Amino acid sequence: MWIRTTCNLEFRLEVPTPLILMLRARSSARQWIARESYSLIPNVPVQEYTDIFGNLCQRLIAPAGEFQVRTSAVAILNVSPDQAPVGGFVDIPDLPDTAMMYLLPSRYCESDRFGNMAREIVAGLPLGYPQVAGISDWIRSSIRYAPGTSAFPISAVEVNLQGQGVCRDLSHLGIALCRALSIPARMVVGYLHELDPMDMHSWFEAYIGNRWHTFDPSCSSLHDGARLAVAYGRDAADVAIYTQFGPPARFSDMEVTVQQLENAPD
Amino acid sequence: MWIRTTCNLEFRLEVPTPLILMLRARSSARQWIARESYSLIPNVPVQEYTDIFGNLCQRLIAPAGEFQVRTSAVAILNVSPDQAPVGGFVDIPDLPDTAMMYLLPSRYCESDRFGNMAREIVAGLPLGYPQVAGISDWIRSSIRYAPGTSAFPISAVEVNLQGQGVCRDLSHLGIALCRALSIPARMVVGYLHELDPMDMHSWFEAYIGNRWHTFDPSCSSLHDGARLAVAYGRDAADVAIYTQFGPPARFSDMEVTVQQLENAPD
Amino acid sequence: MWIRTTCNLEFRLEVPTPLILMLRARSSARQWIARESYSLIPNVPVQEYTDIFGNLCQRLIAPAGEFQVRTSAVAILNVSPDQAPVGGFVDIPDLPDTAMMYLLPSRYCESDRFGNMAREIVAGLPLGYPQVAGISDWIRSSIRYAPGTSAFPISAVEVNLQGQGVCRDLSHLGIALCRALSIPARMVVGYLHELDPMDMHSWFEAYIGNRWHTFDPSCSSLHDGARLAVAYGRDAADVAIYTQFGPPARFSDMEVTVQQLENAPD
Amino acid sequence: MWIRTTCNLEFRLEVPTPLILMLRARSSARQWIARESYSLIPNVPVQEYTDIFGNLCQRLIAPAGEFQVRTSAVAILNVSPDQAPVGGFVDIPDLPDTAMMYLLPSRYCESDRFGNMAREIVAGLPLGYPQVAGISDWIRSSIRYAPGTSAFPISAVEVNLQGQGVCRDLSHLGIALCRALSIPARMVVGYLHELDPMDMHSWFEAYIGNRWHTFDPSCSSLHDGARLAVAYGRDAADVAIYTQFGPPARFSDMEVTVQQLENAPD
Repeated sequence: MWIRTTCNLEFRLEVPTPLILMLRARSSARQWIARESYSLIPNVPVQEYTDIFGNLCQRLIAPAGEFQVRTSAVAILNVSPDQAPVGGFVDIPDLPDTAMMYLLPSRYCESDRFGNMAREIVAGLPLGYPQVAGISDWIRSSIRYAPGTSAFPISAVEVNLQGQGVCRDLSHLGIALCRALSIPARMVVGYLHELDPMDMHSWFEAYIGNRWHTFDPSCSSLHDGARLAVAYGRDAADVAIYTQFGPPARFSDMEVTVQQLENAPD
Repeated sequence: MWIRTTCNLEFRLEVPTPLILMLRARSSARQWIARESYSLIPNVPVQEYTDIFGNLCQRLIAPAGEFQVRTSAVAILNVSPDQAPVGGFVDIPDLPDTAMMYLLPSRYCESDRFGNMAREIVAGLPLGYPQVAGISDWIRSSIRYAPGTSAFPISAVEVNLQGQGVCRDLSHLGIALCRALSIPARMVVGYLHELDPMDMHSWFEAYIGNRWHTFDPSCSSLHDGARLAVAYGRDAADVAIYTQFGPPARFSDMEVTVQQLENAPD
Repeated sequence: MWIRTTCNLEFRLEVPTPLILMLRARSSARQWIARESYSLIPNVPVQEYTDIFGNLCQRLIAPAGEFQVRTSAVAILNVSPDQAPVGGFVDIPDLPDTAMMYLLPSRYCESDRFGNMAREIVAGLPLGYPQVAGISDWIRSSIRYAPGTSAFPISAVEVNLQGQGVCRDLSHLGIALCRALSIPARMVVGYLHELDPMDMHSWFEAYIGNRWHTFDPSCSSLHDGARLAVAYGRDAADVAIYTQFGPPARFSDMEVTVQQLENAPD
Repeated sequence: MWIRTTCNLEFRLEVPTPLILMLRARSSARQWIARESYSLIPNVPVQEYTDIFGNLCQRLIAPAGEFQVRTSAVAILNVSPDQAPVGGFVDIPDLPDTAMMYLLPSRYCESDRFGNMAREIVAGLPLGYPQVAGISDWIRSSIRYAPGTSAFPISAVEVNLQGQGVCRDLSHLGIALCRALSIPARMVVGYLHELDPMDMHSWFEAYIGNRWHTFDPSCSSLHDGARLAVAYGRDAADVAIYTQFGPPARFSDMEVTVQQLENAPD
């Protein structure tokens, strides 16, 4: 399946402002980036580096005044890997070294505070995939998905108290609950086809059965639509699509589109 | 200056238990590990890996029953690098890629919530070293250092509300305040000579003037004693000297010693 | 300056064949990839990974029969960094850790055999940039640049004996001579505007004055044209734009274009 | 099985000389470093870093005059992993990313020149372990193991022409032959119990059956003795136990011991 995504940002800045952008999707076994465009208007020098999670990050100083970032990608999605809802719990000693950090609590996922609650939610479920599916289902039924209600990230503890949240918040809760059960879990930011209202989206992945599996507690089902991952991290602190330093931007606009393509692009 | 450190742990475990230990100090420009011993009693197979922060981590399954970990190190400390209390603020675009992650909020350092408070504390101070020294001084005078009072890590927000904490807690607050000012800051766990009562200690480092500088809000002055770093990370979540999975250990004992040596070891 | 590059490969394969491609340029302080396309015909699943040199590598199994790879990039080049022909020799202890591996001999750059020759070539020249420029000049005047004459890579020792070579061969000799003087040097593969006949090109970089500088012993001058780097490595063994395993491909075609653009793309 | 190793180097230097040492063994699933000592006489500042192969490297400037390096390790060896002489060929697409670089030719292992010869040597053998064992056996019977005969590394092509070599040379030939068959192979430098005459030793590992297996073409059998790995790399260029820059050292002595211990150290 082919999709085309765009994400355009528009900043109005009082002073020259350091920015880190994280908007260049990488190819993987699940998605092949066949086309990409990434324009800065006006054009400024950029340093690109790979962070510890493998994300391509763009560092730049945005000039005062209006500054636009326009990105698009055409990708083919290999959806099959996640179709099969199976995967056993991986014993800690058998986890790859690279998964270990996704067991630890992080800024918005205080997994150290969710041990009892996690065990209650999955009580009686077989280890592995069914536990994570159980967590996702529990969030769907217990926490109201309320897009657009939260201006800044809140943590899993806060989400749980509040009983509602945006996609990011629901993912934080899912991640914290998984880690509390010694299941590595990480945040994904990306595009979801037919998300309504359209916006950047976030979901999470859990490491079971020797690979990462996708879960999305904001969707009524995992297969609501095609998704293109842009960035991975421990939680929203790691995967902000832009991080800005200095005085707050008078941020004026962000526009996201996702479109299914009938055919491969020429 | 030569020092000898030891850290012995003793666990009593109901069932075989996965552990990650982080007790092998690495040599650096500041410390040369001339001797080391690391014994597990009983001996069990260990996988050692390097985490994303450069720490050597030991993964193993501790057997049920009594399990001891005995470590010691003899090191020469090169204290000069931190003697000079200077160092300018480094503009974001000039930071090395590897320092960028230490600008972001993390589990116990909610720097995204400390912007106003940080600006008040450093109001009027020159950028860079004086700001971080000002933060350290403010913590010393405003938050009571109360060793032994906290069984598990609390976050910078909680430390600030509570008005007291152990070394780890004071460091979390210092780190959160630095990051809120766009100064990279990281947690260090290690040994401090003449700490009383003796225990593993933690302090923090801030990236100013193009290198990492040591700050210790739990000490009346930075130069109270020689210190040997064992592990670095974003906060206590990354640098636990042991992380245990499964049912809680009936942890019975931890013993730490630090001793100054007159001469190089034979 | 804006350029547009294309590289198309066409394979005819007897059997399904594992390939590693290295054709996705990365953005850096010198080049910003504003547009990119990367098509496989027929489309097959790809794993993309970052190698130890930071290159994006694509692993796939090409099907039997005809297999095409079509890539293009539109990039803005920041040529200023290399305009200034200065830069001092960096003492070994002051080199960054990441440059150390580029001091060692490698498959096609037997720097361990070039000590005397290197010292003779640069005799009397100031340390640093003038030495590397001297090496480049010596190659230009002593080794015939003969594009199209070599089907497979030969080593610096062989190039020197033979007295002629393609761009890759001349670069190997330059790299070996630099490393023999304790100057880190690495291979670059990429595009050069107005290269004649047009093809993928290779040149080398030397680490002097605290950054990498471009040198191209195949060009009458460094500034013959704009260049877009695609891959970095110790020598041609690391930066093959494709590596094929199994029986040899009946490789039928490779087509490269580089075009200067008057304006930024829309 | 417990062993104790020592390696002492003694340099006499005309001028202060940059050195890279690679003498700190790391713990792994196969070996646990329970004790270690590492002394420099006189003591000088050292920077320690991890190279791209995971080796701990020590950078320093040795002073003019006499300079000694004294190291020792006590380790427990987990010999079981290599007892079973089995392991299938791993298809290229199934290799871990980290093994890919060990398929490429390198300074002393010109695998690109050994395709025909490798296929002849293993003709008729099953894929995987039997091929590598066949290569090792062929080297044992065709290339004379002549310790002490070679002052500096020669390449696989040269070893093959010469028909004899030291342990390093035989390993280079083994590695080149494996890679020519698309089997990842890497160099190991370390200690071998009961090697005669005692010295640092080198052997190689091949990636088959989803892990690295030990092969030693210098030994009449793999199990001649216990071995402790100190460094891994593509070939001898990557794993020199010391690399010295500047005028040649008047190197006066190197002393190696390996001793089996009856019991765990106190």
